[in-house]
Amino acid sequence: MTKIQPGGTIGILGGGQLGRMIALAAANLGYKCHIFCPEENSPAFHVAYTHTVADYTDQDALKAFAESVDVITYEFENIPAETAEFVAKIKPLRPGVQALSLTQDRLTEKEFLNDAGVQTAPFMAFETEEELLAAYKKIGHPAVAKTRRFGYDGKGQAMVKSKLDFDDVLAVTKGTPAILEGFVQFDREVSVIVARSVSGDVAAFPVGENVHTNHILDTTTIPANVSERLEATAKVMATKVANALDYVGVMAVEMFVNDDSGEIVVNEIAPRVHNSGHWTIEGAETSQFEQHVRAICDLPLGQTAARGKVLMKNLLGKDILEHEKYLDDPKASYHHYGKQEPREGRKMGHVTWVDSE
Amino acid sequence: MTKIQPGGTIGILGGGQLGRMIALAAANLGYKCHIFCPEENSPAFHVAYTHTVADYTDQDALKAFAESVDVITYEFENIPAETAEFVAKIKPLRPGVQALSLTQDRLTEKEFLNDAGVQTAPFMAFETEEELLAAYKKIGHPAVAKTRRFGYDGKGQAMVKSKLDFDDVLAVTKGTPAILEGFVQFDREVSVIVARSVSGDVAAFPVGENVHTNHILDTTTIPANVSERLEATAKVMATKVANALDYVGVMAVEMFVNDDSGEIVVNEIAPRVHNSGHWTIEGAETSQFEQHVRAICDLPLGQTAARGKVLMKNLLGKDILEHEKYLDDPKASYHHYGKQEPREGRKMGHVTWVDSE
Repeated sequence: MTKIQPGGTIGILGGGQLGRMIALAAANLGYKCHIFCPEENSPAFHVAYTHTVADYTDQDALKAFAESVDVITYEFENIPAETAEFVAKIKPLRPGVQALSLTQDRLTEKEFLNDAGVQTAPFMAFETEEELLAAYKKIGHPAVAKTRRFGYDGKGQAMVKSKLDFDDVLAVTKGTPAILEGFVQFDREVSVIVARSVSGDVAAFPVGENVHTNHILDTTTIPANVSERLEATAKVMATKVANALDYVGVMAVEMFVNDDSGEIVVNEIAPRVHNSGHWTIEGAETSQFEQHVRAICDLPLGQTAARGKVLMKNLLGKDILEHEKYLDDPKASYHHYGKQEPREGRKMGHVTWVDSE
Repeated sequence: MTKIQPGGTIGILGGGQLGRMIALAAANLGYKCHIFCPEENSPAFHVAYTHTVADYTDQDALKAFAESVDVITYEFENIPAETAEFVAKIKPLRPGVQALSLTQDRLTEKEFLNDAGVQTAPFMAFETEEELLAAYKKIGHPAVAKTRRFGYDGKGQAMVKSKLDFDDVLAVTKGTPAILEGFVQFDREVSVIVARSVSGDVAAFPVGENVHTNHILDTTTIPANVSERLEATAKVMATKVANALDYVGVMAVEMFVNDDSGEIVVNEIAPRVHNSGHWTIEGAETSQFEQHVRAICDLPLGQTAARGKVLMKNLLGKDILEHEKYLDDPKASYHHYGKQEPREGRKMGHVTWVDSE
């Protein structure tokens, strides 16, 4: 049975703000959510039917979790592949194991993207200093060294401007598998949030333009400042990726755009709802969270048009305490993730402005 | 301390779909909810931080509940007045005890409304057959007999077309305090959802027009088919009522409109978010649920303009099973309250269509 009717139960691996917003969207459609997360008092627990606090390697807990739900999804791509494989034997896992394992490794991800006919920056794998040198010679410089696994928000990365940076690089990669990536000269970063359903329907949201500060997303603006042709190309690329993966659910495809050359390359893909899609909650006809629920439950996908010009801004750390400013603003929609400690750089909430005029 | 900052905890007495939708709106703003309800597996439990299953007379449970939250509200006006008084001594109860006790009794409610300068149908209290006869002589006929307390969705009511109906009336009222109400010749029923904050700011949503079937709300349409003057009058009446009660939170004021005479009288008030305000979730700049949270937490009230023409339709009993029809409709927003059994006449969900063109 591929369709999960409203009233059914969705299992979510991961209990952060993405799981929380999936659970809120699921509740509107009558689904119950069971959250599985190793951390006590996770944000998604506060809005879910039930939760399990256990390690991702705890097979007894995973089995009980999987047996209690109708379909399983994840809000976070660093779920161990073994965990995904284990639960996928008990209940449908959407997106599937392949999407997760592929995107956990920058090398397999980039190889897959190129095979799917989608351009990326040039790249080459390395582990040792010798291999780094070989990659440096092939890729040129400047370049960026990145660990193959478990990097996010700029962690596990180092710039390579010359051979003098090799020591710094190896201090970051610590001899683990890594890649050296050619530095892409880009003017803007954009992302496409795309959904694909069990039956293969695909719907892409309008392209958003992202600005990062200290490697963390600061704002997303709709529409992106790109030509109509580029907007269409970006959506086609995201659709190709989703189809090539036989993907089910919402996925984010981040891309770099060079204005002069009109070149557009995929930077990375995230097999989940994504921070750069938060604008859709108020700004699009369907939110990325409801769209994800529709896709994984095999309901018809919703409409994706923007309701106007949209700006989404992340609230990091103590930004969240300025809520008066946003709650007083009649055009602002304020979101607070229910986290207690406003640690520096922590994603605490976001604000969205929709200008429909 | 009147202001409850995002991150605080809201206690909700009652665990039905209204409590559920308050909890969902509260979560968006970062509030945790603690639901108190005597029924196991209540719809609001599924989306709340925590819940207590206990009777409304269980003072130990009420005390622990009240001490665990920052502010208390209710989703349902038949909470015993003693319960409200008990918890209000521990934490702020918003709306307050007066709003609850007043609206639990049709006699005190109507007397209050007339004192506040708001017109109602003529009415007279009765208990015995003799008093019913006296009321019948004064009010005239047709008239409607209603028990003073615990009536909703047409329960505890009987039509009086002649003295021949007295036996039926007394079978319904069973000697309990009741009122006989003059039958109002009306062309349409409308309602105003109005919010008043701790600091006395008032904001009314556009007037909705309600159609009932078998005494249960079927649809609400925005705008109501009334003149601009009547729309303004209805909002002024609702504002008068909220101010006279020194009310805090969202309240619904139901009114009858006579097109020919332009007469408008208040039928009843509900000291809570209301089914006829569900259209605001997608159809207004702020939903009634977020507005209620803003009001009781002493945040600024949100904007209330409609986003276009709106139609809200209740899904009763097995209507909820037709979800394909609504999920396939790109203009429809489908809401399912997570209730298991689609019993006849039970409010299971609703659908909203917004036409912004």
